Amino acid sequence: MYILVTNDDGIQSPGLLALRQALDAIAETVVVAPERNWSAASAARTLHDPLRIDPVAMADGCAAFVCTGTPGDCVALALLGFLPRQPDLVVSGINIGPNLGNDVSYSGTVAAAREGTMMGVPAIAVSLDGRRDADFGPAAAFAARLAVMAVEQRLTCEVVLNVNVPATAIRGAVVTTLGRRVYRDELVVRHDPRGRPYYWLGGAEPEGDLTEGTDTAAVANGYISVTPVHFDLTNQRWLDTLRSWRLDG
Amino acid sequence: MYILVTNDDGIQSPGLLALRQALDAIAETVVVAPERNWSAASAARTLHDPLRIDPVAMADGCAAFVCTGTPGDCVALALLGFLPRQPDLVVSGINIGPNLGNDVSYSGTVAAAREGTMMGVPAIAVSLDGRRDADFGPAAAFAARLAVMAVEQRLTCEVVLNVNVPATAIRGAVVTTLGRRVYRDELVVRHDPRGRPYYWLGGAEPEGDLTEGTDTAAVANGYISVTPVHFDLTNQRWLDTLRSWRLDG
Repeated sequence: MYILVTNDDGIQSPGLLALRQALDAIAETVVVAPERNWSAASAARTLHDPLRIDPVAMADGCAAFVCTGTPGDCVALALLGFLPRQPDLVVSGINIGPNLGNDVSYSGTVAAAREGTMMGVPAIAVSLDGRRDADFGPAAAFAARLAVMAVEQRLTCEVVLNVNVPATAIRGAVVTTLGRRVYRDELVVRHDPRGRPYYWLGGAEPEGDLTEGTDTAAVANGYISVTPVHFDLTNQRWLDTLRSWRLDG
Repeated sequence: MYILVTNDDGIQSPGLLALRQALDAIAETVVVAPERNWSAASAARTLHDPLRIDPVAMADGCAAFVCTGTPGDCVALALLGFLPRQPDLVVSGINIGPNLGNDVSYSGTVAAAREGTMMGVPAIAVSLDGRRDADFGPAAAFAARLAVMAVEQRLTCEVVLNVNVPATAIRGAVVTTLGRRVYRDELVVRHDPRGRPYYWLGGAEPEGDLTEGTDTAAVANGYISVTPVHFDLTNQRWLDTLRSWRLDG
């Protein structure tokens, strides 16, 4: 098995290192990761600037490639010809912090995995509901086990498997749907030393949906969540409603 | 009716101006738009930097607000308290260039509309399959007519209406699904004057899916497409398949 490993926290992330080390036990791996942290940028692809890609050594001395582009760029560049052959799987992560529910649309970790599926390579995205100093070991071990299953069970490019792992005391793994995160954003107005206002989009952490069967509930209850995520954004149920609107007037 | 108008091409876009002028005929409008062009950036929200928002005059002298953030930031900032009251509708566009099929995930125009629905305000995204010097008039007129219908017919926040308008010879308007765009990307390798390689993600324009009923086919055939887009990314069909994988091993 040959696995392309990437992330959106950048080449220096301990989550990337732990993931690659765990995958090394089951496959040949190659790392192509962003040089900087793209979290919350979610930028899809760089069209108007050239990209650089250079060999680097990771913290354990192993070889990797670092790219100036976004997570999606890393995967596109790798699969469009930088790698000598097509990998069997793309694994993206381990993201520092969860990618649950609505967050999935904004996630660079998931965007990188998606780029794999758009180019015909099945993909998994892995995130840890913890901080930079968390133990990535259990999440990395699960990712490696899931990678083996994905290839054996012929995971298709119809979905990305979006995995979220609790930081501590894991009770098991479950298949989930995406929950709704209830954002509690607020506008914070401040004034600079010259009296001009500026704004922060602030507010408390979003509240998780605790409905049974959702990823948000699973992780809150100590379970690893595995959600099949697709990108077919047509809402079928609304098609008939809209047809009754007589758009042609 | 009170409508928030925004876009992702920035405050200077002729598409924004044409849209606001058409909506002025049916509603009170307020423009909050990015100061720069965010096309293909698709960045969702600015979390780690403060935002500025300032009054400006558009090319026709009408008042508007310009914001340093992304399209999504503009909408969040407006709805979280910058506007004196909640609008009845968010209309985003008119984007210069189409947002069809898979492109929808990357579109700042659609992301801005989506931000409206996440905050409880129904939303429409409008794009023109043309260039900067195209005639935005027919697209703007359709947007205004659809805005009236959306409020009358009680469009909900379950979907965003994603509208794409052909540049010339419009034959009507149809309800569509998102097509698949077939990307023909390739990796272009060049060398700088010092001999170091750099890369472009290049390739021809994506080919549209011409399957009947898709937005790509509709616009190619001269019809305005109206697609109900949602952001529920769970693939229901894969849930049972995954349950058979015995993730708990």
